[in-house]
Amino acid sequence: MNIMQPFTTQIDLHSGVFNPERQIIRRYLSDMQTTYADESAVQDILKQEGNRLVYEVHVTDLPEEEGQLLHCTTIIYPGRVGTEYHMTKGHYHSRRDRGEVYLGLAGEGYLVMQTETGETSTLSIQPGTAAYVPPYWAHRTVNTGVVPFVFFAAWAGEAGHDYGTIEQLGFAKLVVQHDGQVVVIDNAKYK
Amino acid sequence: MNIMQPFTTQIDLHSGVFNPERQIIRRYLSDMQTTYADESAVQDILKQEGNRLVYEVHVTDLPEEEGQLLHCTTIIYPGRVGTEYHMTKGHYHSRRDRGEVYLGLAGEGYLVMQTETGETSTLSIQPGTAAYVPPYWAHRTVNTGVVPFVFFAAWAGEAGHDYGTIEQLGFAKLVVQHDGQVVVIDNAKYK
Repeated sequence: MNIMQPFTTQIDLHSGVFNPERQIIRRYLSDMQTTYADESAVQDILKQEGNRLVYEVHVTDLPEEEGQLLHCTTIIYPGRVGTEYHMTKGHYHSRRDRGEVYLGLAGEGYLVMQTETGETSTLSIQPGTAAYVPPYWAHRTVNTGVVPFVFFAAWAGEAGHDYGTIEQLGFAKLVVQHDGQVVVIDNAKYK
Repeated sequence: MNIMQPFTTQIDLHSGVFNPERQIIRRYLSDMQTTYADESAVQDILKQEGNRLVYEVHVTDLPEEEGQLLHCTTIIYPGRVGTEYHMTKGHYHSRRDRGEVYLGLAGEGYLVMQTETGETSTLSIQPGTAAYVPPYWAHRTVNTGVVPFVFFAAWAGEAGHDYGTIEQLGFAKLVVQHDGQVVVIDNAKYK
């Protein structure tokens, strides 16, 4: 029995920034070259405007062990790649039977989910929206607004992250801008 | 493998109220007659002013099962019982090795914790404070302000609640008002 000391982290509820700073994971467009459906749009951006910070995750450095409750903020910067809105890579939990909960803090976006048995779900998140990802659902978040989309998340330490399955297969649904509107469409490349 | 549907709950980040309304647990002073150190102060209030709503918990009705991530808001109304500030009953998790995380939304207060091996910890929570209750720590929250103290919490579905141990033994530390200040003192009645 290893007894850890309790601690607090002060989160700026508007920007999502942690104080004191903990681990920060930054995802640039160059890290997501196969994530967006329009791969030529990715290459055009990288060539013409250079690299771009798409999102960052501020996360407490807790052990990824059973019984711990990991928590983070995610900050997705506004923008698009082709018609597709900025988003996270998305993942299943390595332990598929572990859920997750989000709480929207600033900006707005979508939570895109799917199961390995073919179900899909897309939910809107605003400030104050608690969104529940039940066990077995892969999850990705998308910034559909014009300011940073910021949310808090909590998940079990033993859940783990499986990014590989999504990198190989993609998500069944895409969130795109069409005629100035946010539209959820089928991903033609989904395997 | 039982696949649940994802869902959202809209939380008023100032009041903590859920929309749509889920389960609401209301704790009145009459439910907490042995919780406060000054039991005669409890009886005086019940006799002179009648019953009093101390706190309420708005909680999603998820199954208390392994892999689920339960979440709630807690709203502790301001006030004192004798010198002791309004607080929750407090509990250990039935599975002692399960942690919990809080996020302060409105008002201010303290998170009072202790382990069965004699350690204690008291942390301040303001809006934006993410407070981590590691595995093995009993936890209670206290409103030390003059407006409702509201926070979001998430914990594993299998954690369970053990209120009985705290009802029998109490907490080692009390949060009281002394000369207009918030002070943490030893609980003389702690067994």
